[in-house]
Amino acid sequence: MGFEQAWLSYEKREVSVQWAGIHMIYAEQKGRIIEHAATELQTAFAKITGKEPVLCLERPEKELNGCILLKQKNGLKEGGYHLFEREGALVIEAPDEGGLLYGAFELIKQLQLGNAYEGMDICKEPVMPLRMLNHWDNMDGSIERGYSGNSFFFDNDEILVDERIVTYARLLASVGINGTVINNVNVKDAATWLITDRYFEKLRQLSEILADYGIKLFLSLNYAAPVELGELDSADPLSEEVRAWWKERMKLVFTQVPNLGGFLIKADSEGRPGPFTYGRTHADGANMLAEAVEPYGGLIIWRCFVYNCKQDWRDYKTDRARSGYDNFKELDGTFRDNVILQIKNGPMDFQVREPVHPLFGALEATNQMLEVQIAQEYTGQQRHVCYLIPMFKEVLSFRTYAAETDDTVEDIVSGKTFKQTKCGMAAVANTGNDENWTGHDLAAANFYGFGRLAFEPSAQAEELAEEWIIRTFGEDKAVREVLLFILMNSWRAYEMYNAPLGIGWMVNPSYHYGPSVDGYEYDRWGTYHRADHVGIGVDRSHQGTGYAGLYREPNASMYDNPESCPDELLLFFHHMPYDHRLRSGKTVIQHIYDTHFEGVELVDEMVKRFEGLEGKLPDKAYQRMLERFHHQKEHSREWRDQINSYFYRKSGIADEKGRKIF
Amino acid sequence: MGFEQAWLSYEKREVSVQWAGIHMIYAEQKGRIIEHAATELQTAFAKITGKEPVLCLERPEKELNGCILLKQKNGLKEGGYHLFEREGALVIEAPDEGGLLYGAFELIKQLQLGNAYEGMDICKEPVMPLRMLNHWDNMDGSIERGYSGNSFFFDNDEILVDERIVTYARLLASVGINGTVINNVNVKDAATWLITDRYFEKLRQLSEILADYGIKLFLSLNYAAPVELGELDSADPLSEEVRAWWKERMKLVFTQVPNLGGFLIKADSEGRPGPFTYGRTHADGANMLAEAVEPYGGLIIWRCFVYNCKQDWRDYKTDRARSGYDNFKELDGTFRDNVILQIKNGPMDFQVREPVHPLFGALEATNQMLEVQIAQEYTGQQRHVCYLIPMFKEVLSFRTYAAETDDTVEDIVSGKTFKQTKCGMAAVANTGNDENWTGHDLAAANFYGFGRLAFEPSAQAEELAEEWIIRTFGEDKAVREVLLFILMNSWRAYEMYNAPLGIGWMVNPSYHYGPSVDGYEYDRWGTYHRADHVGIGVDRSHQGTGYAGLYREPNASMYDNPESCPDELLLFFHHMPYDHRLRSGKTVIQHIYDTHFEGVELVDEMVKRFEGLEGKLPDKAYQRMLERFHHQKEHSREWRDQINSYFYRKSGIADEKGRKIF
Repeated sequence: MGFEQAWLSYEKREVSVQWAGIHMIYAEQKGRIIEHAATELQTAFAKITGKEPVLCLERPEKELNGCILLKQKNGLKEGGYHLFEREGALVIEAPDEGGLLYGAFELIKQLQLGNAYEGMDICKEPVMPLRMLNHWDNMDGSIERGYSGNSFFFDNDEILVDERIVTYARLLASVGINGTVINNVNVKDAATWLITDRYFEKLRQLSEILADYGIKLFLSLNYAAPVELGELDSADPLSEEVRAWWKERMKLVFTQVPNLGGFLIKADSEGRPGPFTYGRTHADGANMLAEAVEPYGGLIIWRCFVYNCKQDWRDYKTDRARSGYDNFKELDGTFRDNVILQIKNGPMDFQVREPVHPLFGALEATNQMLEVQIAQEYTGQQRHVCYLIPMFKEVLSFRTYAAETDDTVEDIVSGKTFKQTKCGMAAVANTGNDENWTGHDLAAANFYGFGRLAFEPSAQAEELAEEWIIRTFGEDKAVREVLLFILMNSWRAYEMYNAPLGIGWMVNPSYHYGPSVDGYEYDRWGTYHRADHVGIGVDRSHQGTGYAGLYREPNASMYDNPESCPDELLLFFHHMPYDHRLRSGKTVIQHIYDTHFEGVELVDEMVKRFEGLEGKLPDKAYQRMLERFHHQKEHSREWRDQINSYFYRKSGIADEKGRKIF
Repeated sequence: MGFEQAWLSYEKREVSVQWAGIHMIYAEQKGRIIEHAATELQTAFAKITGKEPVLCLERPEKELNGCILLKQKNGLKEGGYHLFEREGALVIEAPDEGGLLYGAFELIKQLQLGNAYEGMDICKEPVMPLRMLNHWDNMDGSIERGYSGNSFFFDNDEILVDERIVTYARLLASVGINGTVINNVNVKDAATWLITDRYFEKLRQLSEILADYGIKLFLSLNYAAPVELGELDSADPLSEEVRAWWKERMKLVFTQVPNLGGFLIKADSEGRPGPFTYGRTHADGANMLAEAVEPYGGLIIWRCFVYNCKQDWRDYKTDRARSGYDNFKELDGTFRDNVILQIKNGPMDFQVREPVHPLFGALEATNQMLEVQIAQEYTGQQRHVCYLIPMFKEVLSFRTYAAETDDTVEDIVSGKTFKQTKCGMAAVANTGNDENWTGHDLAAANFYGFGRLAFEPSAQAEELAEEWIIRTFGEDKAVREVLLFILMNSWRAYEMYNAPLGIGWMVNPSYHYGPSVDGYEYDRWGTYHRADHVGIGVDRSHQGTGYAGLYREPNASMYDNPESCPDELLLFFHHMPYDHRLRSGKTVIQHIYDTHFEGVELVDEMVKRFEGLEGKLPDKAYQRMLERFHHQKEHSREWRDQINSYFYRKSGIADEKGRKIF
């Protein structure tokens, strides 16, 4: 299938005279990444300005005006860059090749945004050391929770290495992403064989393409590989034989695929194998693997998404939200230095609204990464628009009180709070082999925004959206205003017509799409709303599951008390009567009715404004989006009516405003 | 996969001296079916008595004592037989080969049941002309709504012709089934090509095996075949070109597969193509096909399962239960004589309790068949035991008031009421390639009972169950008593812990297994319970959808009035408050609680008694059943608790007996 260039399409634009004057690119040092940085600059300037600058092999003697200079120079941290104008030349200085590449993309962005050339002076360092994508691609070509077509990494149990991978790498590098896990965390069948010679050659080729753009290739690993590959009878992490097997295996893997960054592991979770089988801890399991990859600088990224997925719905004591904390808190400090725990936002599972995971701030001596999901599994599956950066901003700015200052989630996963360097942020990717990469064209704003945010968390969600709009669709004012309005209202709208007040999970089982209030209510997944004719919500206070007490003070008290608990999380923490008055002054039931009617109205407004863009957007993109907007319009009504009807039928309390409920 | 012989396993038994004296079998006429009848007798007697009788080619001159005589003789209707003892010989007289075969199986049954030899005199005629199975087997080997493994007719888009088909034919003939449709009514992909030379050779072989046992092969047909086979642009039943195509095609098909009985068609239903596409009626569509198959004595069996499957749940007026009537009533009398309308029990779709379809008694000049489902789609999917013959007995004995007398459903589909000969009963089959044919060993009682019932509807459900038990598991008294208790209580138990009072549909969408009270409540399938905090049920009275009025009087008035409507169908016809008192004296809500607790208790009792049979049943069968009983025990609790919790949470009315509800 063909593919577009997303925000790197480099359409020709009107540019100022100075930008048009760029005629030469010179890099002081040589190197494969630098070479790609220079070529990218050449292509971008040629396409946008209409004039192709020359790549110089020799340093220009004089007349630096109109020249782009790339120069390796110490001073900034890895991946940082300093971009500035001097005597008419644009200079990019960076301590390493990756920094120069990022500087080159920064320069291209400035050109695309039409910012001033003269006096330009931008100095940036990546805030998070690791900025990763996690693809849940299966080797048969399908994608778990994929909403943009099939995989472009795999088909029919083979690895694809083609032109699309190069564009993929450019897109990642352009937003600062420096690592990618290409296969599903649920490692089964052929994927178990990725660490065997069946796939080494293709993996090596793939890793080299990525390395050219400063990106490390990672793989998801099957914890039970020694058994499933048929070589051992056990995967006990304390068995000498097993440890020796992994050491031998990793030696082979890193010899054959030298650019490999390491492995991501989902163990003892939702049926995946892990150290529990042998009565061992997650630390035993992770450390065994970490020891095996350590000689090659490899990382072991271990997911904390471990819970009892066979809960009895009649059991009011077990609490899935607690499980990450209960499983990992006591292991703090016992992991090797090249192990990173990857912690989901939030503690349940990527709902439209959850509190921050209580492990953040609880783990003090363990490397940590934040896992978010830009694949819109529970947030409209790329048929609804849902710009997630505002949510991620809230999570990152949450104070954990693990320290006096510098104690936000951002501080922790940037390494600031506990002086760590192996940490960062990962997003479950929303890409596939659809022509536009992300199914919904607007979903690309999450792809873009995630990378930018991990590099520069201080960037505002609105600013990133605007950048993305201009880089993708050009400078038309109406386009910018309308798409910005849509993106910035989309998460709010989706939350409004979705499950209310932080309770989550009112979706059709397995698919996770579309409303089903009781869909997960009597199931085994630990996901309940406990609604009866009097009230709704899960009691996670000290009288209930005690989950609120897992936070540090003052967060613990704030959540524990329904009077101080934020409205938007009230039902996550408390079982409340429908006539309870929220801090907003509305009753719970009236809040449900109001938000559901208003959410749909907001969608209608979004769609109305979008339709005004006909002719101002590329026709193909407009039609793709229009079709999805029409669906969202209809489907948001389905959400509204099902949820309102369910609660009206159950509570018997009428809408104060007398609107139609079925 | 291997397969067992079900009730034709012919285990050795103690028999009386006269049975043991059978030493000779002689058939006066020759013919392929007669030959199979004689061989079957020979095998059965050899295995059961231990002495193999001789097949005589010449009529024995004298000494008929201990001889079985098969003799073609007019007097009874097609398929009838007279079995009697005369001077120590057992004589089977019948007007045709099929009747002799049925008589032979009757004799074998008498032997298996240990009934008296001396003075035996049994004369029977099949009550229903057509006694058919409908297999929903796909050509890739899967079975739609199949719970006993994969297809034994198809695999990988090929037709299988092997020893299992012979045993299949024997099982059918032994209970009087004389027709079978081997492919799914949803005809797609390869199955569309069954009427092309790609499959003729295998179909011919298959049809000959079946013909040897008096069984006609039928196929499900794709209404849009001329288009989907790529030969025409239209399937308009009034187009001369289309009509000519079908005539030509049917000539070819019947020339190549002469034993074919005709076709079953699902048209304009759940996305299948049909005459509606061309603005034509079902009569137009059916008649076109009927004309094409008429020269070959072919039948067109046209399903009445036509409804709007894209209903808006907010719409309280549209009523799926009405749709069969509304679509077909006005076409009465317009179908050709070789068209049969196949009408589902019930008007919704095979729920555990529905009223009889109102088309029965409404159609007076149209051939009709009753369609039941022994595949336990909504009745426990062959993991729960649910003996359905008592339900079918109720349906057959329902008075339609279409005439002064002889007006039951049985009378109608037997041809008695309207003097028809193309009519009968079909069951959606519950078989697959599991070793025991039906997944749950006890599900074979439905397979057995269906055939027996269609042949002899006056047989009692209990009598059929007992026959089946003895023929399958022998004469042990404990086995007979326990299995009879289980079978005869199973439908009642299942109904008790299922959706209450005829409302149906509280199952997980798509799978149709396991409880989900709201599973179909906000969906597009026309399947709602309309429960709120005050009451539950669908108003199908004259004040509601008017469905009750589709019946003839006095049925219409009985159903229309909640005071006279039978309890078990109350919520099918009426929306009632939870505190409404049933005719039983209980409130609706207390009835829900009581039946759900008691249904589980009944299952416990069944399982307890079953466990007492260890050692008395073949070990393999015992283990298979035991595993299912344990599941049913647990799963019936899931039903009980989810349904009770749902209604307790919604109504707020406590159980009078204070039992645990969650």
